[in-house]
Amino acid sequence: MDSRDIRLAVIPGDGIGTEVVAEALKVLEAVGTKIEATHYDLGAARYHRTGETLPDSVLEELRGYDAILLGAVGDPSVPPGILERDLLLRLRFTFDHYVNLRPVKLYPGVETPLADTRPEDIDMIVIREGTEGLYAGTGGVMRAGTPHEIATQESLNTAHGVERVVRYAFAKAQSRPRKKLTLIHKTNVLTYAGDLWQRTVNRVAEEFPEVTTDYAHIDAASMYFVSQPERFDVIVTDNLFGDIITDLGAAIAGGIGLAASGNINPDRTAPSMFEPVHGSAPDIAGQGKADPTATILSAAMLLDHLGRHTEAARIEQAVSEDILERLSGWASRTTHEIGDDITARVSS
Amino acid sequence: MDSRDIRLAVIPGDGIGTEVVAEALKVLEAVGTKIEATHYDLGAARYHRTGETLPDSVLEELRGYDAILLGAVGDPSVPPGILERDLLLRLRFTFDHYVNLRPVKLYPGVETPLADTRPEDIDMIVIREGTEGLYAGTGGVMRAGTPHEIATQESLNTAHGVERVVRYAFAKAQSRPRKKLTLIHKTNVLTYAGDLWQRTVNRVAEEFPEVTTDYAHIDAASMYFVSQPERFDVIVTDNLFGDIITDLGAAIAGGIGLAASGNINPDRTAPSMFEPVHGSAPDIAGQGKADPTATILSAAMLLDHLGRHTEAARIEQAVSEDILERLSGWASRTTHEIGDDITARVSS
Ligand SMILES: CC(C)[C@H](C(=O)O)[C@@H](O)C(=O)O
Ligand SMILES: CC(C)[C@H](C(=O)O)[C@@H](O)C(=O)O
Repeated sequence: MDSRDIRLAVIPGDGIGTEVVAEALKVLEAVGTKIEATHYDLGAARYHRTGETLPDSVLEELRGYDAILLGAVGDPSVPPGILERDLLLRLRFTFDHYVNLRPVKLYPGVETPLADTRPEDIDMIVIREGTEGLYAGTGGVMRAGTPHEIATQESLNTAHGVERVVRYAFAKAQSRPRKKLTLIHKTNVLTYAGDLWQRTVNRVAEEFPEVTTDYAHIDAASMYFVSQPERFDVIVTDNLFGDIITDLGAAIAGGIGLAASGNINPDRTAPSMFEPVHGSAPDIAGQGKADPTATILSAAMLLDHLGRHTEAARIEQAVSEDILERLSGWASRTTHEIGDDITARVSS
Repeated sequence: MDSRDIRLAVIPGDGIGTEVVAEALKVLEAVGTKIEATHYDLGAARYHRTGETLPDSVLEELRGYDAILLGAVGDPSVPPGILERDLLLRLRFTFDHYVNLRPVKLYPGVETPLADTRPEDIDMIVIREGTEGLYAGTGGVMRAGTPHEIATQESLNTAHGVERVVRYAFAKAQSRPRKKLTLIHKTNVLTYAGDLWQRTVNRVAEEFPEVTTDYAHIDAASMYFVSQPERFDVIVTDNLFGDIITDLGAAIAGGIGLAASGNINPDRTAPSMFEPVHGSAPDIAGQGKADPTATILSAAMLLDHLGRHTEAARIEQAVSEDILERLSGWASRTTHEIGDDITARVSS
């Protein structure tokens, strides 16, 4: 076991972000990892106070950490896109988080909105490309505000960017019992990008003869998530389709309160960043209503990424047990109480 | 009642397309509309035989009809994008089908994959823009097949294109009891296009003071479709988000076998085209397994569009009754039998 302290940058962010991050830090401490955590005040409050989203000096400082734990950023008081682009996406892009890893897993004890669905039917890992596609943000507007306005968005896809995430996905599929990888795209309409993705999958497949590959259009895949989720094992997809399908995945797996994610730089040239899939939820902020489980599971992914597999497994185990207990009256616990209960389990 | 014959162009297409269209024509005939139908052989078979997808002369001929009924096009033997782009999308674009109208409605008697969901929870109309966005097909590829390949896709959005579909959506919302319109987009990432859509909705909203407007990001909306479908009444969205969300809508409303759609040119400068949301389903083609109901409902939308409201309502009524009967053993009927049963109901 690696016993070096983990140098962790913590960005609690906005809304429920601060509440759920506090619980995750409690659990991390209880599991016995030595953590040296530094908090960074970034998000809507700082933006309103100073006009800053992510100063260059802070970005460079963050680069020096082992990993980043993020709660959530965003608030209706900030125009759409500002915090997303200049803070969240800037971190993902600058630190080359090309693998956005999002497990979709129905834990025993969780109620899914799907009828007749058992935990073994929903157990997949979505690998969403994190650094290109429509998230590149290129595009523009001409004749704004006139009847002749044109607004464009561009999806940029590179062989470099697609191949590395596809290779990661094949390796992940190879490591799982079913060894099945599904590409999700819209090759029949987005023919240029779709062709690059499909050709890349076909080529890399030759290096992984044990992995079965499959394909689904994003529209059909959305349908399958609801009607036949058992169809999927590992999924690889682009940035936007991955965004959509993982929220849908969270919904079928019992809700956004449990969905964890890692923005991973597998080459380790910069710190990876872990965050719940959910947002800052300003409507319930400050009321102790948020479920910190997604952030706690994200912290477990963080430990796993840093090679602390035993501690990661211990947290996951504690969460599974806690969720199973929910069968008898979970709705009544506060954010703190859920954090305390999981903390107690990892400590014991 | 308009008693002029309807001049109908019929494109059965590929796979189950031919099977379901035959049943819809039977129902149209039985409901007492005089129809002069001309069949057009377009799709994979013609492409393989002659290399043609949609000859210009045929396109011009089609322009002369009152409406078009389409089954489905597409076959795995044709590379992705060819029939879609050169046949289906070419029709939608050339005939300016800027409203892609897709009701998402849970009929009593249909099993939804969602637990605890009643017919009144799922009753919405999705209005998908049909002529621009990422479907414009612009983009390209550079250094193809090399490690330095770049593939791009462009989303083109115009004030003209967005405003007309948004105005149509407001009018539709105004005509319904709940009078609620939700814009679905991804304004926090696709900032240029998102801003145009949001500004347009805000501006047109002033003309419809009785309509409540709402907004959801496409990722959150996908989640709501599963967890709170009752949230939605009328939805307006772009071409790609509309594609995804209507397949998801079909899934929650009991499956693609029932989902109808109209590609509508509200200005009537060219014929509108009606088709089921489902595809050609080559895996079950020729086996009498396809459910023709989606196509029959699309034919009802066609009649409605042409002002034959009584006949349209009669078909919808017959379908509702037929579906209700399914509660007792529907799985066993063939395509023909379902067509016959609905035909019998509209005739009686
Ligand atoms: C907040 C937003 C920019 C972000 C995204 O679209 O990636 C979020 O939805 C997510 O999935 O992490
Ligand atoms: C076949 C395909 C091009 C089409 C689309 O993407 O529009 C289909 O999925 C649909 O929804 O009608």
